[in-house]
Amino acid sequence: MKSLASGLTTDFYELNMMQGFFLTGKNPEVVFDMFYRSNPFGSGYCVFAGLNELLADLQSLHFSPNDIKYLESLNRFKPEFLEYLSTFKFRGDIYAMEEGETVFPGEPLIRVHGDLMSAQLVESMILNTINFQTLIATKASRMKYVSRGGRIMEFGLRRAQGVNGAISASRASFIGGTNSTSNTIAGKIFGIPVSGTMAHSWVMGFDSELEAFRAFAAIYPDDCVLLIDTFDTLTSGIENAITVGLEQKKKGLKISVRIDSGDLSYLSKAIRKRLDEAGLEDAEICVSNDIDESVIQTLLLDGAPIDSWGIGTKLVTGGEQSALNGVYKLAAKMGADGDFIPAMKVSNSYEKTTNPGIKQVWRFFGKEGEPLADIIALESEKIEAGRDYMLYHPFSEIDFFKMKAAAYDSVKPLLNLVMKDGVSVIEQPADLNGIREKAEKSLSSLHMSYRRQVNPHRYKVSLSGELKALKSSIIMRIREQS
Amino acid sequence: MKSLASGLTTDFYELNMMQGFFLTGKNPEVVFDMFYRSNPFGSGYCVFAGLNELLADLQSLHFSPNDIKYLESLNRFKPEFLEYLSTFKFRGDIYAMEEGETVFPGEPLIRVHGDLMSAQLVESMILNTINFQTLIATKASRMKYVSRGGRIMEFGLRRAQGVNGAISASRASFIGGTNSTSNTIAGKIFGIPVSGTMAHSWVMGFDSELEAFRAFAAIYPDDCVLLIDTFDTLTSGIENAITVGLEQKKKGLKISVRIDSGDLSYLSKAIRKRLDEAGLEDAEICVSNDIDESVIQTLLLDGAPIDSWGIGTKLVTGGEQSALNGVYKLAAKMGADGDFIPAMKVSNSYEKTTNPGIKQVWRFFGKEGEPLADIIALESEKIEAGRDYMLYHPFSEIDFFKMKAAAYDSVKPLLNLVMKDGVSVIEQPADLNGIREKAEKSLSSLHMSYRRQVNPHRYKVSLSGELKALKSSIIMRIREQS
Repeated sequence: MKSLASGLTTDFYELNMMQGFFLTGKNPEVVFDMFYRSNPFGSGYCVFAGLNELLADLQSLHFSPNDIKYLESLNRFKPEFLEYLSTFKFRGDIYAMEEGETVFPGEPLIRVHGDLMSAQLVESMILNTINFQTLIATKASRMKYVSRGGRIMEFGLRRAQGVNGAISASRASFIGGTNSTSNTIAGKIFGIPVSGTMAHSWVMGFDSELEAFRAFAAIYPDDCVLLIDTFDTLTSGIENAITVGLEQKKKGLKISVRIDSGDLSYLSKAIRKRLDEAGLEDAEICVSNDIDESVIQTLLLDGAPIDSWGIGTKLVTGGEQSALNGVYKLAAKMGADGDFIPAMKVSNSYEKTTNPGIKQVWRFFGKEGEPLADIIALESEKIEAGRDYMLYHPFSEIDFFKMKAAAYDSVKPLLNLVMKDGVSVIEQPADLNGIREKAEKSLSSLHMSYRRQVNPHRYKVSLSGELKALKSSIIMRIREQS
Repeated sequence: MKSLASGLTTDFYELNMMQGFFLTGKNPEVVFDMFYRSNPFGSGYCVFAGLNELLADLQSLHFSPNDIKYLESLNRFKPEFLEYLSTFKFRGDIYAMEEGETVFPGEPLIRVHGDLMSAQLVESMILNTINFQTLIATKASRMKYVSRGGRIMEFGLRRAQGVNGAISASRASFIGGTNSTSNTIAGKIFGIPVSGTMAHSWVMGFDSELEAFRAFAAIYPDDCVLLIDTFDTLTSGIENAITVGLEQKKKGLKISVRIDSGDLSYLSKAIRKRLDEAGLEDAEICVSNDIDESVIQTLLLDGAPIDSWGIGTKLVTGGEQSALNGVYKLAAKMGADGDFIPAMKVSNSYEKTTNPGIKQVWRFFGKEGEPLADIIALESEKIEAGRDYMLYHPFSEIDFFKMKAAAYDSVKPLLNLVMKDGVSVIEQPADLNGIREKAEKSLSSLHMSYRRQVNPHRYKVSLSGELKALKSSIIMRIREQS
C-alpha cells in the first residue's frame, strides 16, 4: 500500500516542540516507552499488533517539498528549522515485543531510542498505529475464542472508520484470528483470504428468489452461499435454497445459507432441521447482523447450529470501546556526562505516574511453556532461570510476592531490537500468516482463567526490586523539591 | 490527498454479484438509496458529511492492471469480466443532500442512478465514507452545542482508527464545529487551522519546569499555552506559569494554561483564582483528558471557568458508538418496457423493510426558516407551498397528521443532482469552510428541543400518501405470493 506516512502525520505539538528543541539546542539522546494503561473490553490481555506497518512507515517517513511549503505558510517555523526538516529521516533504534505477542497493561511494548527531536516527532504515528491495531486484534481474538472453532468472516468495510481504518482493521482482525475479509483491497495488500456472498439486491435483481439462487449456484458452484432472508426466511428463503441445494447435490455440489435478520437462534435451528430433513446435512449455516463476542457466546450456549459468522461493525471499530489508551512517555535522557538519567512523569494520579529508566520486560514460563507472570526490570539487570525474584506491584507499597526458582521453568526477555539507525532489522514486509500463528500460539499457552470473557483473572505485571527502588527515590526527590 | 479509492475498495460480494450480473446479462438501470436507521449518541439528528470526498473518490475509481492481476489470481473471475473491469469507470448520476445538512433517520441522503453492476460496486465506498464522516460531524456538533461558544481543539490522531480514519475524522469534526485540529496532515489537505501546545516531555526535557516554560514563551510569544500538570498542578505548575505570565505581560504578551489530569472543575476554579489574583485575567484555561459532551456539560454546569477544550478519543472515534448504521438499498429497477419498477426489501422486521420507488425528500419550514417536518415522496409528486399534505408514519398504520397550508411557510426539496454521468457537477474540491457554515446554519435553525442532549424531541419524517399506498400494496402482494 502507498504509505500515508508523511512527516506531517503527526500532532502539531510535536512540531512545536521539535522546533523548540532545535532552537534551544536541547536535543539529547532519549528513550521513550509506548505502553497502554488498561485492557479493553474487560479482556484479560491484549494482542500486540501493528508493529510491522509502523516500521515500514517510520522507514519511509520524510517531509516532501510540498509539506515544507505548507509548514512555511503557517508563519511559525524558522527557515533553518524547515531546512532541517527537509532532509529529516528517522534514524533511531527501536526495541519491541514480537507482533502477535500476548501483552498486558503497563509494560513497554515499544522502546524508542533516538535524539529528542526525532523520538518526539514519531509519537503520534506510533500511537495511531499500535493503539488501533492492538485494539482490533484483541477484539478478534475474543470472538475467535468464544466461537469454538467456528469460522469468522470479517465484513467491516462499510462501517469502518475511513478506508485506511478498514484496511488496518482487516489486517489486525486476521492477526487476532478471523479467517477471511470482505475488504478486497486488504486481501490484495496483505494476502488475506477474501470472502463474500450476496446482498439482498442480488435476489431483488431477478424476477424470483428461486431464479436468483439458481443463477448464483450456476456461476459459483464451489462457493454457493445463499442469502435466504430477502422475503421471508422460513416460508420462502429456506425452501428455495433447498430446491437449489438438491439440484446441486445431484451434481455432487453443496450449498450453504446465510441469515442476516431475525432471531438467529430460533431461525438457525429451524433451518438446520429443514436442511437435514431434505438430505442437505452438509449445507452450512452462516449468520450475520450485529454480532459480537457476547452474541456468539449466547447463541452457542443456546445450542444454535451455526457454522460461521459474518462480523462487521463491532469487530472493525471495537464497538463500545473504540480506542486503546496507549501512551508514549519519556523514560530516560542523556546527561552532559553521556550517561542516561532516568525520567518519569509524577502525576497527581498514581496510575498516570510512569516507570523511569531504560527497561526490559521478562516473562516467566511454567513447564508447559505457559506464562506465569511478567516483570519489568531495568535493562541493566540480568534475570535468569534458577534464581528467586521479588516481584513488586507497580504502585502499591505493600503488594509483592516472591517468584521462587522452583516455581518457574524459564524466563525470557520480550523486547528485542527491531529497528537499527532507522532501518528495520526484521523481515519486511512481514509474513502475516506467521504473525497470526504467533498470536495463536502465544494466546493458547495462556491459562484459560486469563481468557475468560467477563472478570478474567488478572495477569501479574510487576516491577523488579531495582526498578521499584529507583521509582520510589525519584518520587520522593520530586515531592521534596516541589 | 492521494485517493485510496481503488476499485478494490469494495466488499468482495459486490464483485461476486457484479460478475454474476455480467454473466447473466442482468444489468438494468437501477436506483439505490443510502439512508441510516437511527440517530447515534441519543442525538435528535445527524449532520450529513463526507459527500465531497465521496464524489472525488467515485470520479477517480478504477481498476489498475495490478488490481486486475490480483483478481485473476483468485481463479474466480472470467477473462471477459476482468476485461470489462479493466476499463470500468463509474458513470452513474447521484442526487444527494447538501453536505452539512441536518438529516434524520429513514430519509435517503444519497440516491444513486446507474446500471446495476456499477451501482452495486460503489455500495461499500459510499457507506464507508458517509457512515463515518456523518457520525463524527454529528458528535462534534453535540460537543460544540454544549460548550456554549467555547473553542474545541480536536486532538484525536493518536487514538483514531488508522491514519486515514484520523484524517477523515478531522475533516468531519471541523464540519461539525470544532475550531482546529492537531492532525497536521489534515490541516495541510483541508486547510483546517492546526493547533497544539506542548507535551509533558517538553517540560521533562529541561532542567526545571520554569526553564521549560520560559523557553516555550520565548519561542512562541503569541501562542503560549503552558501545560501545568507535569509535576504538581497547584504547587508547582500554576506558580511557574504565573511567573512566566508576568514576565510576558511586561512585554505586552499573554499566556494560557492547559490541565490534562485531575479534577478539572476543582483545578480550573483554583487556577482561575490564582491567575486573577496575579493580574493575569486574560490568561485562558484549556482542559483535556477524556472529554466528551457530557463532561463538557457537567463541568460548565459546575461553573468551571474553562475557555477551550482539547478533545481526542471520544470525538474522532465516536466513543461508545463507533459506527453509524447507514445502509444502501435497491429502490427501483427498469423493466423491459423502459419504465422503472419500484423495488423494496420486505424483512421479517418492520424497521428493516425499505421504502420503494424513486424518492425525493421535502422539508417544510416555518416563518423563521425553522424546519418543521420532512416528508419522503415519490419523485413524480409535486410538493408545493400553499397546500395541505397528509403525512404518514413510515411504518405505523394508524399514525399520521395533516400539515395544513397555514401551518408552514415554505417547502424545499433536499436531494439535488451532484454527479452527472460520473462527473461531479458541484465545485471540487469543496470549500470546507462553506460546508461548516452550512452545518452551523442548518442546525441553528432547528428548534432546541431537537438538540437536547438526552431524550430530544423526535423530528417527524413521514411518507406522502402516494408513497404510503405504494409501499402497502407491494407488501401485500409479496405476502400473498409467499
